[in-house]
Amino acid sequence: MASPDTRQRLIDAAAELIHARGYNAVGVQEVCEAADAQKGSFYHFFDSKEALMKAVLTDRRQGLGAFFGALPSDVPALESLALMYDAFAAAIVAQHAQDGHIRGCPIGSVGAEISTQSEAIRRAVCEALDDMTTTTRKLIERAIAEGDIPPTSTPKELAERLIAYVQGTTLLAKSRNDPEVMRELRSGCMLLLGVEPDRIQSLRSS
Amino acid sequence: MASPDTRQRLIDAAAELIHARGYNAVGVQEVCEAADAQKGSFYHFFDSKEALMKAVLTDRRQGLGAFFGALPSDVPALESLALMYDAFAAAIVAQHAQDGHIRGCPIGSVGAEISTQSEAIRRAVCEALDDMTTTTRKLIERAIAEGDIPPTSTPKELAERLIAYVQGTTLLAKSRNDPEVMRELRSGCMLLLGVEPDRIQSLRSS
Repeated sequence: MASPDTRQRLIDAAAELIHARGYNAVGVQEVCEAADAQKGSFYHFFDSKEALMKAVLTDRRQGLGAFFGALPSDVPALESLALMYDAFAAAIVAQHAQDGHIRGCPIGSVGAEISTQSEAIRRAVCEALDDMTTTTRKLIERAIAEGDIPPTSTPKELAERLIAYVQGTTLLAKSRNDPEVMRELRSGCMLLLGVEPDRIQSLRSS
Repeated sequence: MASPDTRQRLIDAAAELIHARGYNAVGVQEVCEAADAQKGSFYHFFDSKEALMKAVLTDRRQGLGAFFGALPSDVPALESLALMYDAFAAAIVAQHAQDGHIRGCPIGSVGAEISTQSEAIRRAVCEALDDMTTTTRKLIERAIAEGDIPPTSTPKELAERLIAYVQGTTLLAKSRNDPEVMRELRSGCMLLLGVEPDRIQSLRSS
């Protein structure tokens, strides 16, 4: 019963339920039912719901790593950035098409809900955000070297601004429950990078 | 017992508790205790916790209106925008100094937590966000007329980008529990408006 499969099923079920309704609205019993697991199995793998949330965020980070790894590496970095934001926006829009709700970023939403309540979860959220910042910063460094982004700020500052903008746009899309909000993502990101409007238009579409 | 004062006390207590810990983590009983009110009084004024949350958001909108109304009107609109973001950042930082936690935007945090769960609360969040967008758009229109912002996008598009950036920066500050994140707010907003870096430096500080 307490097989590694069960652990992953609990993580997958929790990820889905918490993304749909938030951390505090979802209970351990409900996660167990959705994962077809006993409570005994749950507590074999996780000390608490908090520990489960941390495992979900670790799992999300791995998914994020796979997403970043799948970005084309044979194109200019600025194009990779544009494609990354298009793919993120498309994922949010696709999920809205499934159940009529924009759930937002599964990492940012947890950060917004839980940061003042659980230091352990807040730190796990931060680690995932740091992964995003690092990947973004590296692409920005390359795009600056390729002459596509003016070096008006440090790559780290630019990356932080982009993460903030992506999180905020996704939060607005969720609050408005409007997938159209996501369509602005690429343009806003490119403007924050100091890319000229003409150049934005000429970048390859996903 | 069920005086209008009691209603406002319930709203104030709920605003404080929900901002500190989130909507789902706070119960009606706890709000009543913090407001020194009986449950009977609560249900005299509010049908449900959801109705209370809507009243809190209406109250927040009024506070927001007062905040916007207090912005200096005798300065260029671009300066008003810069001062507005400085004041918002300062409020977030000041609150961190009180209890060591960045609570984030009291409106955006609720949007992130509850939008998929309560259509009524989501709509109330949207109305508050719309107020922010409208005020921002009007200032942008004036700043464009005053020649301080290049009209590369419509004022509404620019306003939406700013709201997204402000919400995202605040969410990052909350997730990192780091007031330093807020110090970037003015610069990022000005860059999104297409203001030249030199001009950003020359704007009056708050």
